[in-house]
Amino acid sequence: MWSLAKIAAHIKGEVIGDANFEVTSFATLRSAQEDQISFLSNTKYKKYLSDTDAGAVIVSEEFVDLVPNNAIVVDDSYVAYAKAATLLNPTHTIELGVDNSAVVAENVNIPDSASIGPQVVIESDVVLGENVVIGPGCIIQRACHIDANTRLIANVTLCHDVEIGQDVIIHPGVVIGADGFGIANNKGRWIKIPQIGGVKIGNNVEIGSNTTIDRGALEDTIIGNGVKLDNQIQVGHNTVIGENTVIAGCVGIAGSTIIGKNCAIGGGAGLGGHLELVDGVQLTGMTMVTKSISEPGVYSSGIPAEPTQLWHKNVVRYRQMSKLTDRVKELEKLISKK
Amino acid sequence: MWSLAKIAAHIKGEVIGDANFEVTSFATLRSAQEDQISFLSNTKYKKYLSDTDAGAVIVSEEFVDLVPNNAIVVDDSYVAYAKAATLLNPTHTIELGVDNSAVVAENVNIPDSASIGPQVVIESDVVLGENVVIGPGCIIQRACHIDANTRLIANVTLCHDVEIGQDVIIHPGVVIGADGFGIANNKGRWIKIPQIGGVKIGNNVEIGSNTTIDRGALEDTIIGNGVKLDNQIQVGHNTVIGENTVIAGCVGIAGSTIIGKNCAIGGGAGLGGHLELVDGVQLTGMTMVTKSISEPGVYSSGIPAEPTQLWHKNVVRYRQMSKLTDRVKELEKLISKK
Amino acid sequence: MWSLAKIAAHIKGEVIGDANFEVTSFATLRSAQEDQISFLSNTKYKKYLSDTDAGAVIVSEEFVDLVPNNAIVVDDSYVAYAKAATLLNPTHTIELGVDNSAVVAENVNIPDSASIGPQVVIESDVVLGENVVIGPGCIIQRACHIDANTRLIANVTLCHDVEIGQDVIIHPGVVIGADGFGIANNKGRWIKIPQIGGVKIGNNVEIGSNTTIDRGALEDTIIGNGVKLDNQIQVGHNTVIGENTVIAGCVGIAGSTIIGKNCAIGGGAGLGGHLELVDGVQLTGMTMVTKSISEPGVYSSGIPAEPTQLWHKNVVRYRQMSKLTDRVKELEKLISKK
Repeated sequence: MWSLAKIAAHIKGEVIGDANFEVTSFATLRSAQEDQISFLSNTKYKKYLSDTDAGAVIVSEEFVDLVPNNAIVVDDSYVAYAKAATLLNPTHTIELGVDNSAVVAENVNIPDSASIGPQVVIESDVVLGENVVIGPGCIIQRACHIDANTRLIANVTLCHDVEIGQDVIIHPGVVIGADGFGIANNKGRWIKIPQIGGVKIGNNVEIGSNTTIDRGALEDTIIGNGVKLDNQIQVGHNTVIGENTVIAGCVGIAGSTIIGKNCAIGGGAGLGGHLELVDGVQLTGMTMVTKSISEPGVYSSGIPAEPTQLWHKNVVRYRQMSKLTDRVKELEKLISKK
Repeated sequence: MWSLAKIAAHIKGEVIGDANFEVTSFATLRSAQEDQISFLSNTKYKKYLSDTDAGAVIVSEEFVDLVPNNAIVVDDSYVAYAKAATLLNPTHTIELGVDNSAVVAENVNIPDSASIGPQVVIESDVVLGENVVIGPGCIIQRACHIDANTRLIANVTLCHDVEIGQDVIIHPGVVIGADGFGIANNKGRWIKIPQIGGVKIGNNVEIGSNTTIDRGALEDTIIGNGVKLDNQIQVGHNTVIGENTVIAGCVGIAGSTIIGKNCAIGGGAGLGGHLELVDGVQLTGMTMVTKSISEPGVYSSGIPAEPTQLWHKNVVRYRQMSKLTDRVKELEKLISKK
Repeated sequence: MWSLAKIAAHIKGEVIGDANFEVTSFATLRSAQEDQISFLSNTKYKKYLSDTDAGAVIVSEEFVDLVPNNAIVVDDSYVAYAKAATLLNPTHTIELGVDNSAVVAENVNIPDSASIGPQVVIESDVVLGENVVIGPGCIIQRACHIDANTRLIANVTLCHDVEIGQDVIIHPGVVIGADGFGIANNKGRWIKIPQIGGVKIGNNVEIGSNTTIDRGALEDTIIGNGVKLDNQIQVGHNTVIGENTVIAGCVGIAGSTIIGKNCAIGGGAGLGGHLELVDGVQLTGMTMVTKSISEPGVYSSGIPAEPTQLWHKNVVRYRQMSKLTDRVKELEKLISKK
């Protein structure tokens, strides 16, 4: 149970109503019960505010009069929700020490503050920081470095010589440091180019499930501090992702592409290789990037869904654009003669 | 060996020919040998029917005269094939009990009818139904519930508090219940929003390899009964997928999108967040959905491949459509004056 | 330390300068130090050649005069780099034998030359060739065959009855042989079609992390010799990929599609089911293939990114193409009357 006073202090908000009122947990405006707290940030949900059963609601100044119960007024209700929800949902306690079933190489030092789960493999020359959590089934190959407070949830694979910063969260199924796609065509047969670069992941990075980040061919693949990657993203070798850039699910980034800081890349976007995107570029979902982008701003591509019959017709017309252009040219000639 | 009489009884079909004829296994019309049974459903393969060496063929009434050997006549030959192939290929026998190398938390009860494979991890407070099969290398984190007859083939990861229904099949590499992509921008830095919802998977669901299903932010991510998901699908937090909807490989679904019942989504399609698709929507492959769809029917997007030289030209013309429209407008003006 | 003479002998090149000069490792032209060797293949990097600190550079004849230090002259500098880098970076020594934590079925013979890592599972009737390496956490289900010199890096899952050739490399998170997406609609409910085919992978294949290759429905899914697959590729059941074809990351291939030899498929491309691509087809990134391709050549689709405001306008105009065509037709009529 958390009092509104305590929550307000944590999120630097002001209680309007009973500061001693206590809540158990967060819920949406529609589902919340009297002992729960909710929030309004997306104005799409404003319609649910006046009828909510939530015992308290985190809102910005402009909506406070609509709150039927207690309110906590803040500047940015979404950030306040993030912070309050973190307060109310502390990380589950994790057992320290090394599980009996883990296989840890002899020369690896496990800090007393670390947790190594069941069925884990830690190969030689791995270095682990304080409070590191290696969840069940993770494989850490030789000479990886994992800094303090970093958590690998479960079933994560780090290939050799991968460096992970502090306060990083890596979700299940992630593979970091596998060989990049380097091949050379030798008289019709493809031969492998050794991938001898590494991967460096900064601090405060989060990596979603089944995302893959390849090691560099000669130099390193680099993920900057504060980068947030969603699920099933593919990061090619020698890619560089700048600080605080966020990338949604299913994005594919070919090799040697450099993405600036504070970019936001929508789900399913595809970026070609050897490109450069400056800081502050935003891509909407499924955008196809084949050239470098030198100006910050929002970029898009793709034609959204339409009924299939119409789609067929439009595709046909698209392919006839050349003829249409010729017809217009012909008309222009004719009319100029008249 | 199965007699045609036995197979016909199982699929409610009628034998034309020798009901005592026995077959060993299924094969395609082209590759089948005399001791095998085949079927015709896609009429594209009708041309192979009269020359098949198959000892028996499952067909609908209209093609029975073309069958050179024995036939089993049914209403729906594809469904009959599915049922007969299931009869002829019973699930491989699985050893019951808990493998010595599995790590199972003390407070977890393993039914005698269950099978827990090698290198498995089952954390505390997990509840398993009768006949559950947890294949090698699976990780089941705390407080998951898995109902009767459900099979996790191998190397599946369930994060904490995930609920799986009965008769579900989950293929290798699947990750269910990892944190959704919830972040808030706090003065230029991204902070994490705790993902405190769960995941609920219904009965008779099948989930293909390396698919990821995130847990909800506040409420649950929900997969309805009878849903079939192919490989490498990404299901964002708070997504709801209605009963009997089928989704092909590589589809990405952003968060909080609600998909109706009996939908069919083609491979590589992308759905934006916070959308709603009614029951009975079909999307062809690689369709990009950016708005809700309120009418059942078939929807598409994307322009299919063309020779690259032509593609270049068409892209240029696409970008000149504005000018072309202006030219037509100009012509209209000119001609109205004449 | 490798002398230039030794390297030149290995790559069939000619040393221009000091053949006894020794280098430690490879680096890019820009980052190389005096004890390192570099190469020039992409002419984009020619500008860095004259200023490089590299002690030696592998180049083709035409650039040799620009090399400031020692040079090795070859016909194809990219292939030479691949070979020389392989020489300078021998595969890490792997401990032979079976790790104590591995669970190996009784009837499996492990060659003395093989290495079975920690937390591995090898089920019954598996056959392993000489020098096979099964890295940590791999799951090999019953009756798989893995030929000589093949390496599974870590956390790879092979479902039952998968056949892998010689000299294959499989990266972490790969799943081979899971059930294909075979379902039949039985009066509104989907029933499973048993997937009783297998998967056959040829020799000299490389498969990138988290790629999935489904087993066949009735016949096998087949990956030819020398095929190179990048990360997160989805290969549907009964797909056939011809020899020496290369496929970049995030490509989705629906079932029963046949891809020829020596094809090159760009990242994020999508191929529908039951198609046939002849030998020598190239697809650029994100191309959508809905029909068979019967002529070799380069094919593309998709409209690249543009500023979002412009994109909105172009999408609107795209949807108005029909009206525009009508207006042109109207003009043609009018002008023919005048």
